[in-house]
Amino acid sequence: MKVGRQHYRSLWADEAQGVIQIIDQTRLPHVFETATLKSASEVADAIKTMRVRGAPLIGVAAAFGIALAVSRDPSDESISKASAMLRKTRPTAVNLAWAIGRMRERLKATPLSERLVVAWNEAQAIADEDVALNEAIGRHGLEMLAKEFAAHKRPLNILTHCNAGWIATVDWGTVTAPIFMAHDHGIPIHVWVDETRPRNQGLLTAWELAGHGVKHTLVTDNAGGHLMQRGQVDLVLVGADRVTRRGDVCNKIGTYLKALAARANDVPFYVAFPTTTIDWNVEDALDDIPIEERSGDEVRKVRGLDGDGDFAEVTIAPKGTAVANPAFDVTPAELVTGLITEKGIVRATEAELLGFWPRTEESKAYLT
Amino acid sequence: MKVGRQHYRSLWADEAQGVIQIIDQTRLPHVFETATLKSASEVADAIKTMRVRGAPLIGVAAAFGIALAVSRDPSDESISKASAMLRKTRPTAVNLAWAIGRMRERLKATPLSERLVVAWNEAQAIADEDVALNEAIGRHGLEMLAKEFAAHKRPLNILTHCNAGWIATVDWGTVTAPIFMAHDHGIPIHVWVDETRPRNQGLLTAWELAGHGVKHTLVTDNAGGHLMQRGQVDLVLVGADRVTRRGDVCNKIGTYLKALAARANDVPFYVAFPTTTIDWNVEDALDDIPIEERSGDEVRKVRGLDGDGDFAEVTIAPKGTAVANPAFDVTPAELVTGLITEKGIVRATEAELLGFWPRTEESKAYLT
Repeated sequence: MKVGRQHYRSLWADEAQGVIQIIDQTRLPHVFETATLKSASEVADAIKTMRVRGAPLIGVAAAFGIALAVSRDPSDESISKASAMLRKTRPTAVNLAWAIGRMRERLKATPLSERLVVAWNEAQAIADEDVALNEAIGRHGLEMLAKEFAAHKRPLNILTHCNAGWIATVDWGTVTAPIFMAHDHGIPIHVWVDETRPRNQGLLTAWELAGHGVKHTLVTDNAGGHLMQRGQVDLVLVGADRVTRRGDVCNKIGTYLKALAARANDVPFYVAFPTTTIDWNVEDALDDIPIEERSGDEVRKVRGLDGDGDFAEVTIAPKGTAVANPAFDVTPAELVTGLITEKGIVRATEAELLGFWPRTEESKAYLT
Repeated sequence: MKVGRQHYRSLWADEAQGVIQIIDQTRLPHVFETATLKSASEVADAIKTMRVRGAPLIGVAAAFGIALAVSRDPSDESISKASAMLRKTRPTAVNLAWAIGRMRERLKATPLSERLVVAWNEAQAIADEDVALNEAIGRHGLEMLAKEFAAHKRPLNILTHCNAGWIATVDWGTVTAPIFMAHDHGIPIHVWVDETRPRNQGLLTAWELAGHGVKHTLVTDNAGGHLMQRGQVDLVLVGADRVTRRGDVCNKIGTYLKALAARANDVPFYVAFPTTTIDWNVEDALDDIPIEERSGDEVRKVRGLDGDGDFAEVTIAPKGTAVANPAFDVTPAELVTGLITEKGIVRATEAELLGFWPRTEESKAYLT
């Protein structure tokens, strides 16, 4: 999407130079800077240090990491080594494992002499498919927003939480795709952006919206209930880390509180995600999804710019304070108005979600 | 309450030296430091800079400010000048105006030669009455907590939001009084402390609980719903800035979201406050209480300690980001389990609250 007047993807290949370019996400939302990655180990390092982040994007980055390894040495051994190294960076990331698996399968079946071309093409295909996926989510979401706009006949106020934006994908994003498309279609939009403690990913969303010229206002995570109570939110639109087969939504901590407020105030609550996010093995998210407990220092400390404009960190908690930092929560299906996927919008029920089952043979094949 | 092994009030008089001592609250929760105030203008300055904060406490501070003015010059003119100066520090603070009014009435009826003694005594009486008020809230709250403990037969998990603690009063606090008393009575308590963005007043609560040895865990404002959903909260206990005659509660932004989660998960939701917090002129808080919109910089910036242990501030929002910062929200009476006051615990209904009406002649007399 746009940064300033220029269109960017969050990662792109410079095949002629045999390198890839990324947006350094550790410098956002304050500084926009791109970086060049020249080898699989530089890609692994960028994933580990979160210069590249977001489940879909790190899968794509890893695929290009394999291509970079093949550029140097197309042997099976080289590919195996690069795969293992890249996979270790985020051991629980499903997209990462999937993309690496797909690259390996494709290259295994390719003669050594053709691997260079095939590797770059396959990685590029994975990137392009991610763009198409998010674009499809955007088109379905746009339809819903157009209907809401027709009903309200005034600028739509959307509240979002966390960052399910384009820089977590290759382009468009899941939550941001419908918003960008609506904006591009002349539907007036204003977005309430939750800061999303503890990691403040909402600030990335604010940066993305600013880049594309979408009106938005930053609020604390505490403000959403008040805004909904006062009629200042027309709909809530969030992403998902995992969705169960009956439509429970596991997403960034705090999502559940917004869903409760939406229900109490008759505000529609939508969740946007690709169908690969559906975990068909899980029915009841509360019983079956373990919630990641992250470092207490994410709560104790806050990062930003100091008075000189340099990156700095301050400690906000009194010394020795015990901290709990659950990273996700579960919004029960009954609080969800609609699930926006690349295959269409459905209600959060097992009956409707089963329309998306089974996954294509293609996507199943590479799941490990 | 206790800081380390010593008992403190948040403000105390040293009549022999003709000064008052305060805890410098701008240094909390990181540094515990007391300061000496020698004149009415030093008191006014301490209120303005929030070295002294909390509605009840600034009333008491202003009363002692008048006493300091009388120490230098007991004339009507001196008292009038000090009153005007102190009042200007926080023009909308009801307790401040009330305490100054009470001091003035008392001193007007006193011969010049006796004013010095009367002024110190009256200010001390206001301080002691505040302590007694919070102690009474604590006793009623303790009864409730004892019942909850008897029902649960294991350590009680209480979730609180913001700071309605002892340093906002002279001692005890409203929310903390029942907690400290329960702890002192051997009821095992664990408190989930919301950080309470944007001003992070929860960190003051964490500091207070640590000082008194009460077990607690800091969490983000986003975590409360998740904790309640998982059965990790036995009751919510918060303070109030204003309560309407039918029991709507106006309190720190984010309180409403916790009340919704409490209701959705059958967790009792209690509010502790003195009956002077009841605004008998307001029935419907949503219609009739204007919500203060505070500076966006409270959201854009976060204060804490830098790597060297010095106070520092970081900017978290991208440059130019629009911010909304509503400071309070309204929790409708129907979400409230009980109101804990110095006169007892009642349900949040007009019928039960009217038992507290009218206020005593005494308290009415000084309201201006």
